[in-house]
Amino acid sequence: MDARVLWQRYQDWLYYHQGLGLYLDISRMQFSDAFVESLRPKFDKAFADMAALEKGAIANPDENRMVGHYWLRNPDLAPSPELTQEIVQTLEQIEAFAEKVQTGAIHPPKSSRFTDIISIGIGGSALGPQFVAEALSPDFPPLKIHFIDNTDPSGIDRVLTQLRNNLSSTLVVVISKSGGTPEPRNGMIEVKKAYAGQNLDFAQYAVAITSVDSNLDKIAKSEGWLARFPMYDWVGGRTSEMSAVGLVPAALQGIDIRAMLDGAKEMDDATRIPDLKKNPAALLALSWYYAGNGKGEKDMVILPYKDSLLLFSRYLQQLVMESLGKEKDLDGKTVYQGIAVYGNKGSTDQHAYVQQLREGVPNFFATLIEVLEDRQGASPEIDPGVTSGDYLSGFLLGTRQALYENNRDSITVTIPQVNARTVGALIALYERAVGFYASLVNINAYHQPGVEAGKKAAAAILELQQKVISVLQQEKKALSLEEIAHKVGTPEQVESIYKILRHLQANQRGVVLTGDLSKPGSLTVSLA
Amino acid sequence: MDARVLWQRYQDWLYYHQGLGLYLDISRMQFSDAFVESLRPKFDKAFADMAALEKGAIANPDENRMVGHYWLRNPDLAPSPELTQEIVQTLEQIEAFAEKVQTGAIHPPKSSRFTDIISIGIGGSALGPQFVAEALSPDFPPLKIHFIDNTDPSGIDRVLTQLRNNLSSTLVVVISKSGGTPEPRNGMIEVKKAYAGQNLDFAQYAVAITSVDSNLDKIAKSEGWLARFPMYDWVGGRTSEMSAVGLVPAALQGIDIRAMLDGAKEMDDATRIPDLKKNPAALLALSWYYAGNGKGEKDMVILPYKDSLLLFSRYLQQLVMESLGKEKDLDGKTVYQGIAVYGNKGSTDQHAYVQQLREGVPNFFATLIEVLEDRQGASPEIDPGVTSGDYLSGFLLGTRQALYENNRDSITVTIPQVNARTVGALIALYERAVGFYASLVNINAYHQPGVEAGKKAAAAILELQQKVISVLQQEKKALSLEEIAHKVGTPEQVESIYKILRHLQANQRGVVLTGDLSKPGSLTVSLA
Repeated sequence: MDARVLWQRYQDWLYYHQGLGLYLDISRMQFSDAFVESLRPKFDKAFADMAALEKGAIANPDENRMVGHYWLRNPDLAPSPELTQEIVQTLEQIEAFAEKVQTGAIHPPKSSRFTDIISIGIGGSALGPQFVAEALSPDFPPLKIHFIDNTDPSGIDRVLTQLRNNLSSTLVVVISKSGGTPEPRNGMIEVKKAYAGQNLDFAQYAVAITSVDSNLDKIAKSEGWLARFPMYDWVGGRTSEMSAVGLVPAALQGIDIRAMLDGAKEMDDATRIPDLKKNPAALLALSWYYAGNGKGEKDMVILPYKDSLLLFSRYLQQLVMESLGKEKDLDGKTVYQGIAVYGNKGSTDQHAYVQQLREGVPNFFATLIEVLEDRQGASPEIDPGVTSGDYLSGFLLGTRQALYENNRDSITVTIPQVNARTVGALIALYERAVGFYASLVNINAYHQPGVEAGKKAAAAILELQQKVISVLQQEKKALSLEEIAHKVGTPEQVESIYKILRHLQANQRGVVLTGDLSKPGSLTVSLA
Repeated sequence: MDARVLWQRYQDWLYYHQGLGLYLDISRMQFSDAFVESLRPKFDKAFADMAALEKGAIANPDENRMVGHYWLRNPDLAPSPELTQEIVQTLEQIEAFAEKVQTGAIHPPKSSRFTDIISIGIGGSALGPQFVAEALSPDFPPLKIHFIDNTDPSGIDRVLTQLRNNLSSTLVVVISKSGGTPEPRNGMIEVKKAYAGQNLDFAQYAVAITSVDSNLDKIAKSEGWLARFPMYDWVGGRTSEMSAVGLVPAALQGIDIRAMLDGAKEMDDATRIPDLKKNPAALLALSWYYAGNGKGEKDMVILPYKDSLLLFSRYLQQLVMESLGKEKDLDGKTVYQGIAVYGNKGSTDQHAYVQQLREGVPNFFATLIEVLEDRQGASPEIDPGVTSGDYLSGFLLGTRQALYENNRDSITVTIPQVNARTVGALIALYERAVGFYASLVNINAYHQPGVEAGKKAAAAILELQQKVISVLQQEKKALSLEEIAHKVGTPEQVESIYKILRHLQANQRGVVLTGDLSKPGSLTVSLA
């Protein structure tokens, strides 16, 4: 495209939000006007769907739930005065709690201040708090946060070992909607043991963020934990950063949560406008639809040119892929939807996989995130008249141009600086874009049946493990894998049984596999 | 497939390396025997290519270079006795240096020990050291490592601010082949200023890892830095972890670099065998080729079920995508090759994007990495007879099975534990697999023309910035963007000029944009 025409296209499609100082540029997505026109009816429906959702429609029909994460930053929108009040009060309680912890009004039994936080949670209960901590935590936060976001024993050990001399001043935040999800439950149990091992009364260090009357809530209440904050069934895990899930850890680290909420609210207001060109979330959804033909045929590569936004792509992986990655559409038709998301940061990634983006398989579109402010304060000159930040900006512009010249599409999002308001706005922008895109392709963005299925599959393996151990305990002699499978009553499960036993053997659990390890079928098994 | 047939297929294709205790299972890649047969001629060529490469053939024809990262762990293979000796001596020097630093024989002027490291490098000079630090660094390393891997001013500030009270005991390792790559050069200049700001003599804290006689080498020599270690033109950045680039930071952290080299050597030996079924790297390459039809049609999702392997996917993004993401094949034909790589860790990712993997767009194949040892020492029971590690194992097995049932292919790599030897072996395994795959699809895996082009594109932007500032300095009155572009002599660059000026304005560089910010074409520009 001729440079002048392109400059005109840039200006025609440039979105600017004055209050936030945020720009969205989709001029390098090479859609035609005719394509945009063809999507108008779908967008009319998407705007109507979103309006209904905000008014409390059942937007998650599978689970018969309202979808209300927008209310968190504009409580007046909640469908009942009671709900409005609960949101407002919870926010006040979070702020009051964080202030008391930071001033020492709430302090651990053997110390005047809490110094550290262990945050135990997985999925939406980890990715938002991690992204926000990396983006916004001050260099010397009042409390330093550490995450246990898995059921990996050595991962848990690493966190606990590094904190072993500070455990008596470490607050533990356990985040789990039900309290029954294995990863946070296991993390909590192991952390509790570590506190007991140092003769510390866990309840005096613990905070629960969970549904009212969940198992976790009951434990926290009966044991007298420091505090409990609610999770709501109308907020999904991947959109829970503006609920207690995200706000409690953020506030404890000294992050301005009101500003984060304000930024999200401003963006919600902007993305409520039912006019494609005036709505940045709609423009994003349009671009995604164009890139992947409404079928996710292209991956979304997220490249923030700013170290502190490193985890944004990981946050978006969940938000986008868990929301859009669905087998069935709302009519029950098999559609295998989704958009794959990956990325780290620029210009670092230019020295890694951007080689492939520029020259290799054209199976993606890029989203470049530009932050105008290089740093707080002035920059030294690296070369005459040139700063480190000029280089970073040059890399971004050069990469955008090179991608365009090689016929690779890109979006550019520009924010004035990384702060609580712009981060809140980015989260809200992408939440809404995902909602619109889901409408465009007619799927439920608010459930995650595959995650539930994954939990069940794992539970089935653990059940099989118990049965296998029972069989081995009953038998006195060594058995082949096939014999065990037969005795367990699941002859089709030989391979799973083998893998279970191999894992037990590697962990001194009394299982002995004998024979040629390269030939699993030849092994015999006994208990030590 | 019937469970018994599948169990047989599992055993038929299972690769086991006794010395390393490493398994590779490709039974869930649903290729047929006929497919394998059809690739035999390509593999014969790949084995021959690899043998030639190891003997010192010019495997990187564009740059007329040998490819010798294999020699680093088996110096006897180097094509000349001088080279063998240089590799051996460098390794000894690295170990001696690390020991002196750790014992305090080498120490900073105002302190008895170095306590921290700032590692400045990008691409291959960051991703390997970061992956290895995360995987292998002890909980309390003798020196704690921090990375500056970008030219982001606020990112640099964060590292320097957090270390401001420790700068006088912080070693700086500058890693840059030429010393001219902007990111490490800028990082070095800014860090140097920080040392000067604390009246610390930078040279007494600095180590250079660079090509002999590079700009950086000359600076380090003339300023009398603590040490200099060589980079070689026969080791590419993305395969440099076993050179000084990776070994110096690793040794300083107390990681057993001999074991890492040994693991890599053992794997090199195993992947030298010209027999598909006995060669794990060939089996990987076969699987990749099958998955993506030799054209990268499926993304490679890397899911290590172990927190400490979190950065393996980021490491592999570079290794795989920069090596394979090429426009032209070796015959000059346009092919747009590559394989997209992403992933973080299991089971965490099961609560994020695995929803899409299970149910959504089937545009990927998964690689599950299993670590048999849960932790050092025994695990507490979470439920009767069940540990946290059993859950982790259950999630892995459950996900693998669910993916299979939904017709999504997967590979499983199993290692006994995460240690220096197995990490070395994993790196070597994937390096070789990439080499084989490149042979299968007839591309040069060892150059990166797009990265060079990216540097040039950025340099052009910086040059444009200088010209724009000159024009503004010469003019007394406010100019429109079009007028500036005309005066600079690049009327087609209005948009780039706008973006340069917007960035300068945001950083108090004396540029003032006046007018309606939402309409760039209407803005006028002047110097303050």
